[in-house]
This record gives sequence, structure tokens and C-alpha cells, in this order.
Amino acid sequence: MSRMTFNNFLNPIREQLLEVEKLMRSQADAHHSDLAAALHHLLDSGGKRIRPALALLTGGMLKADPNRLVILAAAIELLHTATLVHDDLIDGAFLRRGNATLNSRWSPAATVLTGDFIFARAARLAAETNSMSVMHLFADTLATIVSGEITQMFFGRGVVDLQHYEQRIYAKTASLFETAASSAAMLSLVKQPVVEQMRCYGYAVGMAFQIVDDVLDFIGEQVTMGKPVASDLRQGLITLPALYYWESFPDDRDMKAVLGGNHRGEEEMNRLIAGIRESGSIHKAMDTARQFVERGLQALKDMPDNLERRSLEHLARYIVDSQL
Amino acid sequence: MSRMTFNNFLNPIREQLLEVEKLMRSQADAHHSDLAAALHHLLDSGGKRIRPALALLTGGMLKADPNRLVILAAAIELLHTATLVHDDLIDGAFLRRGNATLNSRWSPAATVLTGDFIFARAARLAAETNSMSVMHLFADTLATIVSGEITQMFFGRGVVDLQHYEQRIYAKTASLFETAASSAAMLSLVKQPVVEQMRCYGYAVGMAFQIVDDVLDFIGEQVTMGKPVASDLRQGLITLPALYYWESFPDDRDMKAVLGGNHRGEEEMNRLIAGIRESGSIHKAMDTARQFVERGLQALKDMPDNLERRSLEHLARYIVDSQL
Repeated sequence: MSRMTFNNFLNPIREQLLEVEKLMRSQADAHHSDLAAALHHLLDSGGKRIRPALALLTGGMLKADPNRLVILAAAIELLHTATLVHDDLIDGAFLRRGNATLNSRWSPAATVLTGDFIFARAARLAAETNSMSVMHLFADTLATIVSGEITQMFFGRGVVDLQHYEQRIYAKTASLFETAASSAAMLSLVKQPVVEQMRCYGYAVGMAFQIVDDVLDFIGEQVTMGKPVASDLRQGLITLPALYYWESFPDDRDMKAVLGGNHRGEEEMNRLIAGIRESGSIHKAMDTARQFVERGLQALKDMPDNLERRSLEHLARYIVDSQL
Repeated sequence: MSRMTFNNFLNPIREQLLEVEKLMRSQADAHHSDLAAALHHLLDSGGKRIRPALALLTGGMLKADPNRLVILAAAIELLHTATLVHDDLIDGAFLRRGNATLNSRWSPAATVLTGDFIFARAARLAAETNSMSVMHLFADTLATIVSGEITQMFFGRGVVDLQHYEQRIYAKTASLFETAASSAAMLSLVKQPVVEQMRCYGYAVGMAFQIVDDVLDFIGEQVTMGKPVASDLRQGLITLPALYYWESFPDDRDMKAVLGGNHRGEEEMNRLIAGIRESGSIHKAMDTARQFVERGLQALKDMPDNLERRSLEHLARYIVDSQL
């Protein structure tokens, strides 16, 4: 929650971020007051608005039309919000970022429909960018995210495989980061290789962001996280720190039990989590995140040298540097 | 289910309808086998494909590119399919058209995600029509449908008001009929007034279609319907026959009980349903449907005189004539 607070690198886009916020909040105005209340509740719950920031900074760097960028950024954040609504419902989560989720207050039916409504508004805003390429990308990204969730649901538990992990966090996070950066580039008058470079930037930064999130799941404290430590592992979901731990200690009994889906007691789980926290796996995972950040910075090297580019560089570094 | 079988008016588009079917079924190919199986199950459950037919016939009449029409028709039917998936989940329905619904076999989580995935594929296909206007319309139609469902959920029960009823069936059914016809017109090289006329046609035919559906809910038999007679009324949802009955018999006690949300016994409910079935309300509702069909036919009167136009006329009449 505090990861993006007080960041100077957001200075070039402060006003635009406020416009994005306003545009998102207005999306239920012509509809029910309940729907508007739900949307405002969701947006009040915060979120770092890192995806809109990515789109606005990329578009700003490449001199895209600011109005279209605001619309795009709102579309992207609403797509993200809609997937979170359905996600929380599916996970039965009652808290997100320490705030009550929609499904903790509303019926599942109302929650499903609110998510659908937000999808619809995201699609509408995406269409208002008047770019077919952006529309294509948008629809494909939604398919990628949802398909990733389905994979996780059916095949996600107990799988220890780096490629599988990377695919999962790509679908979950990096795909939309990629879309935020590359679609903002598409709205500029730049050539395809520049769009492709910004896609690489978005991808790399998104991968780093999710790895750091997975690390924080291990090293954070329950009070600040709003969820138990190692919540993924407790659900049998193997993220990078656990994956590296398993590589180093292939005979760890507690790990074997988790992977085998055997229900172990709280004590064994806490012992395993402590083991992972104290092992080198956390640092190794952070190193991997840093490598992704480097790839992201590489992708920026031929971009116009302006304030927005420096913000994008700062943003990439901030993901890994502010944490540990 | 049998309402669209053996219809000569589908002759001009038989082959295209098969292509639509194939295109819809291929949408999960690059993803999980489970997802593909779910999609095929949904599409196997039939459905009249009246929305694709509307789009193909309208586009055929106005000489739109056949390939783009097939894509559009598939997009529309998938949008419809996705809303049904979430709808059945919300209603807790286990049967649709006599077939098992997805949520009767899958977990709610998998059902939500399958619906989302189908939305994503529908949006992708809509984007492939390469028409911004079609994309706008698509996103707005999804918002209309979902917003209508939310209204029904929060304010739908026990409301006896013609305007409210018309708004509800517009959101539920006529909006997508409207979009099918007008977006097919948009893919042609016709002027805006022609698009507008086809929108009117789609609207009118859609309204008639839903009214007839609501009439069938009263007069059908449980065996052929795959659901109990007057299932809407049993859930406190007032459709046109009940609305007209209430106008004629404002003192009917059983009706008052239903409207007041008082739980009455099976006997009172059956007495009320029998009363509605035997009253003139059924015929009055069918007359209203016929008036909508007339409006639809009026909208066609300046259209090119060809096979597809005659099929659209036939289709409109068939909605009301094949029933009673």
C-alpha cells in the first residue's frame, strides 16, 4: 500500500492521475446508486495506480495525446479492478489491502455482476481511445489474465516449476503491465520497434513487481499485509522464494508435505515458512526481480531523454529498491 | 428450443451459420482442454442462434463483407453466451433449455472465470470486425445487459409497471438484438439513417421475442420447457401476462400476495397461474408482441428488396405466428 507513496517520479503525471481517478469514478454515474457506491468503495480501497502511471509516463515520454492517455489509463485500471473483484469472489477473500472486499458485503451474484459491469466500462473506455490495436490488445489481455486464473485453479497447487511460475505471474500481472506500456506507445506516433521496446519494459517491470509481491508475502508481517504471512504457500501455491528453497533443500520434509497436498499442522507450516524466510531464497528471488528491472531499464535506453523517461527508470528501480 | 427449427428463412445464411458455429467453438483452442470442453458444452446446449441470424441477414441484405459478418455474428452470440453463464450462476439454475448448466457441474469459481473468458473472446472477435463503432456499441450493450440484471436483482421483485417491464426486457434481450442488427448495418457501406432503421428493427423484434418468451413461460408445459410453469412469477418477477392480469383484476388476492412478497402456498400460486392462463392477458400480451413485430416490419420498408430482406420479414413474423 505504501509502496508508491511520496514518489517524485509521479510528479510529471500528478494532474493526469487525478483525471484518471475522476474518470473511473464517473463510470457508474448513469446507473444505480448501489453500483456507483460499489465502484467508489473499490476505488477507495486504494491500489497503487502503478498501471495507469506506466501508461501515462510511457505516453508522455512518447508525446501521445494526453486526453487519450487518461482514457487509456482509466480503462487499464478498471480492467484490473474488475479482475480483482472476480478474483476476491473466487478466493473467498474478505480483505484486500486491509479493506473489505465487495464479496464480503455483497452477495456473490451482485459481486459477479459488478465485476461484469466494470469490465463493460473498461471495454467502453478502451474503445474510446479509438485505436483498433489497443482494442485487440485489451481483449487479448483479458483472455490471458482469465486463462491464467483458470490454469491456477485447475493445475496451480503444488507445482514447482520455474517456467510454470513465470507463466502464472505473466498472466496475473506482467501481461497488463505490458499492455499498459505498449498500448500507450501505440497511441503515440512511434514506429513498431518502439512499441515493442515498451512492451518489453512493461513485461520486465511487471514480472519484477509480482516477484517482489511474492517476496513480501513471505517477509511481511500480518498486521501490515492485512493477510497471514505466506498466504500463497498456505494455499499450496508455490511462489519464487519457495521454489528456490526447494531447489536448495530438495529433501525438506515439510516442503514435501505441502507439495504432496498433505495437510500438515500449523506448526509444520510455520517451521517451513521460517525456514524459507531465513534461507537465501528470499535474496535469490530479489536478485531475479532485479534482473528483470535491468531488462526493463535496457528497453528504455533508446527512448527520448525526458522527464517521463527518467520517471520510468525511477519507477522500475523503485520496485526493487524500496523494499529490502 | 424448437422455435427456430426448419425455417426456410435461414436458407440464405445456412453456410455462414455453420462458419459462425465453427468460429465460436475454436475460441478456446489455444487454451485449456477444460475450457474448450466447457465452451463446447455451452454451445451444444443449442440456442436458436437468432442473434447471429439477425446479424447475418441484415449484413447480407445490405451487402456487408461476409467474412466480417461471420466474425460479428460469433462475437454477438458469445457475448450472449457469456451473460447466460453468469446469469445461470446467479440464479442458481441447473438447467437451461433442458441441458445441464455449467454451474451445475463446475464450481462457482470456474463458472465465473469461464464466463469472463467468453467475454474476452467476444470482445476480441468484436475488435476483429475492425469497426470502432461496433466496438463502442458492443461495450455499451454489455453495460446495458449487466446493469439491467443488477436492477432486476435489487429492485426487480414485485414491481408492476409497464415502463419498468419494458426497460427490463430491453436490457435483457432487445438491446443485443438491436446491436446485432445495427452493428451488421454498420459493417455495410450504408448511411446512418439505414443503421438507425435496422436498430429499430432489432429493437422491435427483440422486444417481441422476449414478450413471447414470457408468454411461453405461462402457457408451456413443464416437460417441454425444462422448468416449472410461470417460473418468473414464482420468483416474484412480474412479466407482461401477469401485468395485464393485474390491470384487469386489481383486487385479485393471490396477486396481491405475490406482489407484497408474502409467501403463499403452492395452491394459491397455482390458482393465480391458472387464472392468468385463462384470462385474456395471454392474448393481450401476444397482441403487444404483434405490435412490436409490426414496428419491426415498418422499419424494413425502405430496405433493398432481396432474399435477405424477405427472410428478416419472415423471421419477425415467425416470432409471433409460430406460437399460438
